Amino acid sequence: MAVQVAVCGPSRCGERELTLAYEVGRLIAQRGAVVVCGGHGGVMGAVAAGARSCAGLVVGVLPGADRSGAGQDLSVAVATGLGQARNNVIVNSADAVVVVGGSWGTLSELALAMRRGGVPVVRLGDGWRIVDADGREPPGVLSARTPAEALDLTGLWD
Amino acid sequence: MAVQVAVCGPSRCGERELTLAYEVGRLIAQRGAVVVCGGHGGVMGAVAAGARSCAGLVVGVLPGADRSGAGQDLSVAVATGLGQARNNVIVNSADAVVVVGGSWGTLSELALAMRRGGVPVVRLGDGWRIVDADGREPPGVLSARTPAEALDLTGLWD
Amino acid sequence: MAVQVAVCGPSRCGERELTLAYEVGRLIAQRGAVVVCGGHGGVMGAVAAGARSCAGLVVGVLPGADRSGAGQDLSVAVATGLGQARNNVIVNSADAVVVVGGSWGTLSELALAMRRGGVPVVRLGDGWRIVDADGREPPGVLSARTPAEALDLTGLWD
Amino acid sequence: MAVQVAVCGPSRCGERELTLAYEVGRLIAQRGAVVVCGGHGGVMGAVAAGARSCAGLVVGVLPGADRSGAGQDLSVAVATGLGQARNNVIVNSADAVVVVGGSWGTLSELALAMRRGGVPVVRLGDGWRIVDADGREPPGVLSARTPAEALDLTGLWD
Repeated sequence: MAVQVAVCGPSRCGERELTLAYEVGRLIAQRGAVVVCGGHGGVMGAVAAGARSCAGLVVGVLPGADRSGAGQDLSVAVATGLGQARNNVIVNSADAVVVVGGSWGTLSELALAMRRGGVPVVRLGDGWRIVDADGREPPGVLSARTPAEALDLTGLWD
Repeated sequence: MAVQVAVCGPSRCGERELTLAYEVGRLIAQRGAVVVCGGHGGVMGAVAAGARSCAGLVVGVLPGADRSGAGQDLSVAVATGLGQARNNVIVNSADAVVVVGGSWGTLSELALAMRRGGVPVVRLGDGWRIVDADGREPPGVLSARTPAEALDLTGLWD
Repeated sequence: MAVQVAVCGPSRCGERELTLAYEVGRLIAQRGAVVVCGGHGGVMGAVAAGARSCAGLVVGVLPGADRSGAGQDLSVAVATGLGQARNNVIVNSADAVVVVGGSWGTLSELALAMRRGGVPVVRLGDGWRIVDADGREPPGVLSARTPAEALDLTGLWD
Repeated sequence: MAVQVAVCGPSRCGERELTLAYEVGRLIAQRGAVVVCGGHGGVMGAVAAGARSCAGLVVGVLPGADRSGAGQDLSVAVATGLGQARNNVIVNSADAVVVVGGSWGTLSELALAMRRGGVPVVRLGDGWRIVDADGREPPGVLSARTPAEALDLTGLWD
């Protein structure tokens, strides 16, 4: 079965996040992998558009109980009806998780991915960071400057 | 977005159910729609194989928290981690639900599809039937003898 | 930890189902067990009222993402946000499942309980029955005429 | 219906977190509210023990599909079978969320609570903090030094 990469990020974001997400989607498709995302707009819509620009496969895992609000670039839309608990479905379905930008929903996806363990989690660009009681970042989240570096850090194409 | 048809049925079933499921999958793909299924073997594996024989797209919505046990003919596997609650995800994601064969899991999918309402639910072949306190079948479930009739009854291609 | 008994049934039902559900709730509380139910009205409301009449503990496992619509006799309300996938949570939480009356949602609970296996499932009164391709009821669902018989059939108080 | 307060924190934690959690549980019970927690040990076990010391009601919302691993101080255990997606059920069920200590699972609960919106979220003690791209904490999470201050900050007893 094909490699599956989750790309997580907010539906409201800046131009820079959109550009990064589009490029990540393009590269994932070029490398023959499937994009798993939240199925709505913003970062989710940009990664889907990027993947579709290279004829890639994109699954949108929606929070709602039907496909309303599904982005136009999804190959398939899964209507979980779980609300934000669908974030755990996205994370469970991925060989690696790339996070672009910051929001509470996005942070929950990063945290659930780290909680799951065993899959590389990469923050691309300037998203939110976590600081423990001693002022240090808890270990484990990888950090990338460019989309290509983000995918390389996953180690999936070594 | 493409039409999505859920095909539900047991992982353990007879030859007749496998043949029906394979043919349903083939016809769904030929008509340009996506197959949504439970992602495991038996009826789920047969419908996936049928769809892939016509280069169709197949999403497996798995009960487990990873992709172990995913069938080889899936285009994409969604690891819900929900156990049998994933049956509701399958049903929510469908424009129509076709049921092949009988088992408790399959019956829960038929019941959840009818509970959702608004989407055609078709029983193909000799699956389990429901009888109310007066000995009558509650209205709503359609019944088909052949895979082509099952898809025609959904009304999705009228 | 206390024994937990799920009581499932439709929100719209007749007087007879309400009477049976109230009495089942009363007996479960008298026997020192916790009632798990769907948290809304009809059979769910009646079983909660019965249990509360004997100072019993009642958990309502709601489909919604908040506690709106929660019945007034619940001790605790769990807002799953899962829609009808919450039916599987009810079933997972029970040492035995008692089903009163018939509806598609109720049938999904019975089916999910049988799919889970290992817990007694008792139909109380004249609910829906299942018939396989040979016209026979698949084995496993117990059948009771009275609330006391339903609880006795679970074997939890032998 | 009674007020419900979720208390979230790791199963592995230090003595200080256990003391804070126990005291929070005690105070919630004293104020007549229900504790909602993850149902396992560590912070979850301590808050349950504290609440039970004052005859309070405690619901454990478990990740597993049965009640194995349920803490001994729970009044009721809900076996969601959702894995870490159960964190969203905890958050949905609460009038306020108190977070004690830091871990990836705990962070996901804080993030899901903020994502939900509309309920006070209080960090008690020295848990993990979030820092955005500009080095600032995103607004919204309240911070308390003592259990009593944490409950006062929720505003539920004003």
